[in-house]
Amino acid sequence: MANISQKAGMMPASAIRKLVPLADKASSKGIKVYHLNVGQPDIKSPACALEAVAKNGLDHVSYSNSAGLKELREGLVEKYYKKIGINISLPEILVTVAGSEALNMALQITCDEGDEVIVMEPFYTNYNTFAFMNGITLKAVSTDIRDGFNVPSMKDFEKLITPRTKAILISNPGNPTGTLYGKEKMLALGEIAKKHDLFLISDEVYREFCYTDDPHFSAMNIHGLEQNVILVDSVSKRYNLCGARIGVIISHNTEVMKAAMKYAQARLCPPVFGQIATIGALDTPASYFREVRNEYIERRNFMVDTLNKMEGVYSPLPMGAFYTVAELPVDNAETFARWMLEEFNIDNETTMITPAASFYKTPGKGINHARLAYVLEIPEMKKALHILEEGLKAYPGRTV
Amino acid sequence: MANISQKAGMMPASAIRKLVPLADKASSKGIKVYHLNVGQPDIKSPACALEAVAKNGLDHVSYSNSAGLKELREGLVEKYYKKIGINISLPEILVTVAGSEALNMALQITCDEGDEVIVMEPFYTNYNTFAFMNGITLKAVSTDIRDGFNVPSMKDFEKLITPRTKAILISNPGNPTGTLYGKEKMLALGEIAKKHDLFLISDEVYREFCYTDDPHFSAMNIHGLEQNVILVDSVSKRYNLCGARIGVIISHNTEVMKAAMKYAQARLCPPVFGQIATIGALDTPASYFREVRNEYIERRNFMVDTLNKMEGVYSPLPMGAFYTVAELPVDNAETFARWMLEEFNIDNETTMITPAASFYKTPGKGINHARLAYVLEIPEMKKALHILEEGLKAYPGRTV
Repeated sequence: MANISQKAGMMPASAIRKLVPLADKASSKGIKVYHLNVGQPDIKSPACALEAVAKNGLDHVSYSNSAGLKELREGLVEKYYKKIGINISLPEILVTVAGSEALNMALQITCDEGDEVIVMEPFYTNYNTFAFMNGITLKAVSTDIRDGFNVPSMKDFEKLITPRTKAILISNPGNPTGTLYGKEKMLALGEIAKKHDLFLISDEVYREFCYTDDPHFSAMNIHGLEQNVILVDSVSKRYNLCGARIGVIISHNTEVMKAAMKYAQARLCPPVFGQIATIGALDTPASYFREVRNEYIERRNFMVDTLNKMEGVYSPLPMGAFYTVAELPVDNAETFARWMLEEFNIDNETTMITPAASFYKTPGKGINHARLAYVLEIPEMKKALHILEEGLKAYPGRTV
Repeated sequence: MANISQKAGMMPASAIRKLVPLADKASSKGIKVYHLNVGQPDIKSPACALEAVAKNGLDHVSYSNSAGLKELREGLVEKYYKKIGINISLPEILVTVAGSEALNMALQITCDEGDEVIVMEPFYTNYNTFAFMNGITLKAVSTDIRDGFNVPSMKDFEKLITPRTKAILISNPGNPTGTLYGKEKMLALGEIAKKHDLFLISDEVYREFCYTDDPHFSAMNIHGLEQNVILVDSVSKRYNLCGARIGVIISHNTEVMKAAMKYAQARLCPPVFGQIATIGALDTPASYFREVRNEYIERRNFMVDTLNKMEGVYSPLPMGAFYTVAELPVDNAETFARWMLEEFNIDNETTMITPAASFYKTPGKGINHARLAYVLEIPEMKKALHILEEGLKAYPGRTV
């Protein structure tokens, strides 16, 4: 029996999905599980996207250009990015297999094995997975829940910069925190990147989910940093097309885009049906985003209010995405999450949350934090949060 | 301006697609280009596959399980693999983003950086690309065009085996050669893998395109090698769904499948519309494959006959896939292919072929070889081959 590689053995398993077997087990015992653990919203995709797929008219499904269908790239440039103030030309955008591939490409393009990338913790856990796959070390700047996980002092970044540092990787609005970095914070990050000539990889897949009155400020609009910014984007969240697996990588840097094309050609092309759905999605009316945004603001307000009324629980008010990271009065949020699935229920219903320690790089950090997604309708969420509250009261490892 | 990584700079560009800009230039001058260069058939996808997508009935497009929709995995196991004599259980199959991802996963799972994989040259050029991306060295056993590029002596393999050798990677039927390895050759390869405890990664994406009377013999059916075989498969060619981007990785080895799941979770899920198309495709009637096979046999016979009638040209008769590698009477097949696109046409029509040197690892090998795909209808192919023949006569670097 041949042995698998050491690297495959050491590859981190998904922190977000590792409790799924426990949830499945609970379900199989007849327990209904409320999923506050994943960012899978229940909101409909735009009808124009679904219609485009239904009426695709293909009689065979050929490869597209490795960079994506030209109609899609042109549509994205003209109908989407131009409208939101991101001005790019056709060679500066390449369609990827969702944001995941765009992110992986951005890391491969900027870093050799042994290089370092600075992130802010808590960060999206797959940043760590893709870094591992590419032999890259993540260095984490800590942020503070009481400061809403916002960008800390630039000194905290500079302390971590070494000759091997190649990039700063951010997600704005942030997963898991929902934190929105405003223009001032973005310009400060841009200054650091410029001073040390680092790439700024900006994951903006939650761009349409911003709850302030100011428009989202993209890293693409940091003046003077055009050659250093790589934008990672996706239609998964924007149009609720998670399963379509369509994203993009965007940069004004021609060397970056030339390299991206080589990686793109190796995997031949992005999924064609998903590309067709996205071409359709480009005609989504503004009212769709308004309605979705209003819905999420209500859900967010409800979740955060409810959480903060629970004894010993603290959640900041996130200004973007559809997550919050809350502090729980427990010894260990993972132990608690497992206990909720294995031991606790009210009338055969329980609630699933994602323990947040794996969103941190610093050992021991975030041990009593959990990520909660406000992706359920309010009546459902109300039940889920009630069960959570009662669970917290009954949990043997409660700390207050 | 930040610099891209050394690795991204050194990443090989697609050998198959690098002449595309010349073809585009020819087209823009009003020249019609016959594409014998790519494996993009003109045959329709099964109606049941296209209908499944058109009538998908989704109102939003969620993530699927990282391993793929359960209905799809079950369908593949029961309705496809069982019927062709490959017996697997549900945990032994994982849906990938086409054969490309399955191949990349197989390399990541079997090899650490610096490890070696044995291939037979000429081989599918992206084997080299994915090996490069993972820091793996390909070692190539040479095969002979006069022997139809078949598996040579086992001694040729053993000469290349070192302590760093982790796998043998084959494609059967082969791209670019169309060579079909029969049961005897497969068992011989199995013996080597067993003796040296190597993985045997078997890329069988052209399985339905076999032109002998014997059924295709899968590596999955080599007795006693169950723990060493990894099957790479795809629906791209089988159902002419190249753009759907759905493949699978299959193994009886639980460690392999556990690792595959970790890589799968990192990219969240395979494309959902493509999965739905594939669920539909599982109901493809046997008559579809019969008709396609008959069509390809005719096309193959026509192409190979026509090639061998040209002075100085030699092509073996491939027993699988829809390619042949032919020897041309030219100093350099790449120079010739470029010249055809840039300098030669008959009544504003020219023919594009893929120079085969990049399918070889040994420098200088295959310099006058080209891959030709018989994916056009015979009347079209007839014109394309006529232009090729006249081009060969007129080419300044002709050698006979």
